[in-house]
Amino acid sequence: MTYFRSNINAMKGYTPGDQPKVKRLVKLNTNENPFPVSPKALKALQEFAGDLRRYPDPVASGVRKAAAAFVGLEEENIIAGNGSDDILTIVMRAFVGEGDKVAFPEPSYSLYPVLADIQGGSQVFIPLTEQFQLPENTLELLKGCKVFFVPNPNAPTGNLFDKAMLRKICSEFDGIVLIDEAYADFAVENCVDLIGEFDNVIVSRTLSKSFSLAGARLGFAASNKNLIDGLMKVKDSYNINMLTQVVGEASLLDLDYMYECRDKIIETRTKTADSLKALGMNVLDSQSNFLFVEPIVIGAKDYFDKLREHNIITRYFPAETTKKYVRITIGTKEEMDEFIEVTKSIIEQ
Amino acid sequence: MTYFRSNINAMKGYTPGDQPKVKRLVKLNTNENPFPVSPKALKALQEFAGDLRRYPDPVASGVRKAAAAFVGLEEENIIAGNGSDDILTIVMRAFVGEGDKVAFPEPSYSLYPVLADIQGGSQVFIPLTEQFQLPENTLELLKGCKVFFVPNPNAPTGNLFDKAMLRKICSEFDGIVLIDEAYADFAVENCVDLIGEFDNVIVSRTLSKSFSLAGARLGFAASNKNLIDGLMKVKDSYNINMLTQVVGEASLLDLDYMYECRDKIIETRTKTADSLKALGMNVLDSQSNFLFVEPIVIGAKDYFDKLREHNIITRYFPAETTKKYVRITIGTKEEMDEFIEVTKSIIEQ
Repeated sequence: MTYFRSNINAMKGYTPGDQPKVKRLVKLNTNENPFPVSPKALKALQEFAGDLRRYPDPVASGVRKAAAAFVGLEEENIIAGNGSDDILTIVMRAFVGEGDKVAFPEPSYSLYPVLADIQGGSQVFIPLTEQFQLPENTLELLKGCKVFFVPNPNAPTGNLFDKAMLRKICSEFDGIVLIDEAYADFAVENCVDLIGEFDNVIVSRTLSKSFSLAGARLGFAASNKNLIDGLMKVKDSYNINMLTQVVGEASLLDLDYMYECRDKIIETRTKTADSLKALGMNVLDSQSNFLFVEPIVIGAKDYFDKLREHNIITRYFPAETTKKYVRITIGTKEEMDEFIEVTKSIIEQ
Repeated sequence: MTYFRSNINAMKGYTPGDQPKVKRLVKLNTNENPFPVSPKALKALQEFAGDLRRYPDPVASGVRKAAAAFVGLEEENIIAGNGSDDILTIVMRAFVGEGDKVAFPEPSYSLYPVLADIQGGSQVFIPLTEQFQLPENTLELLKGCKVFFVPNPNAPTGNLFDKAMLRKICSEFDGIVLIDEAYADFAVENCVDLIGEFDNVIVSRTLSKSFSLAGARLGFAASNKNLIDGLMKVKDSYNINMLTQVVGEASLLDLDYMYECRDKIIETRTKTADSLKALGMNVLDSQSNFLFVEPIVIGAKDYFDKLREHNIITRYFPAETTKKYVRITIGTKEEMDEFIEVTKSIIEQ
């Protein structure tokens, strides 16, 4: 006897990146930020004077105001999520019914198809070009889809999609375009301006990457008031706890610190990419806090395994479109120096 | 142009109880605990040495172990939720497809029909008897339903359902029985034993009431391993943040403190009920941390409004089955003394 819906029985769950317990480890596998949380945010947490026995603000007003100021919109344009995964879940539940088609690039964030499975939606993969760009016939492939989930910069490839093409999609596609900007703070441009241009655009953000807050679970979506109002009906009533509201709001108000860490990561990203290229590897242009690397001089899986033997963990995606690559999170300068030294020793063997 | 699913457009969102900003207020409206969080839990939070830039344990192992010990089961029998609302959402998504029937008592927790609406499920209300018990023909009414959500003790009425009847339902109903034990720590019995007896029973718990942790958002479900494994596929990957895991685990390990506060609340509950009865009111037998009161000597809505004028907020549900009652959370002894004094003055007027 099974009680589960058939789509739930048929699906496999999402596999999060490893969080190993080993202490002496260079952890470059889940795109976490190597710099600590904003000192102002930690101070706010230490000085937390709220009353945990009370329910939190159900609409997370402080977080939303700070997020709105950050992206240049109003509080009514923002919904807060228990991580941006919560935002993706809310969007899937709001727009995609059973059997409805929902699209994502391939390769892309592997959570999207899992969320589609849970909802009972039908998956449409948009196969990226060799350069991991959206294909010319994207709009054709999107026909009849309810939502197009498109991460920009994309993960695990790290590149931005052509913005003119994204704009054209927002303009001509008759479903929702969810632009997942988890890594946008590391990129030269973002798509927040498209929210004002079109009525079908939702931009999601996370504080897990550029704001070093993966452990606190906070993300948000920005969109027009009409779409935000509908999404608010779907979210869990008290989806953001008090402590996360405190640390999240303080982080969003300490933008100087975020940009300072971000700039260091970008500097290290450039230096690491140059070093790998000098070793004969193919490194995709990255607009994120990770590199997508085709080792060439060594097999990708082999490289991943050997790094692991040296206590450096990265991420390998065995799917057809990604199996030649290893994804490497940008750590501190010191971590990446060690990573390059280990890479040299692996190649020399 | 609307992009939302028709069920989302048609529905109204859930209305959480008021969290007014006024300072001098006796807040008896959302069944929060009048006693502070466990001092050991607050200490664990102050000493938090985790690294917020890292992702939290995706399966919240510490919380689950502590919850398992609390209810006498194993870690594999527990799933943690971002509040027990998250558990209810996960259960709805796991078992109820579009158009599937899902049942709840009427009156009961008003979130259930909202979650059914979001999922596109079809609502079946089980009308309670005059004494707010399940009707004789409950099993008949449940025919064809995928899930029966049954809070025990019930909210907003506060009574336990007859356990022999619940056991019979678990045995003969061919769907899932979700027993929502948000208030079970205030009751003389619970239904955890039914998990071992039947393969279709899920018991949900929250730390928002007896553990004074509404602000941290933590709940859990207990069931057999088979059902827990399926629910784990549906939950968001990192649904419990690090801070809540720390404060939640420590709270679940400090049971003496919880029971001490619980006993005080039960004592105050009895005393408050006796005082109201002495004033001529009808007070339902409560197995929870609130009273469901039929004022009789004054209209319910009138009583609710007048209490509010005296800065005492309670909760009034205007639906047909509940409109004669006011729901009153049990606060501290001092708060309830004041509440009784104010009630006397209202009646005298």
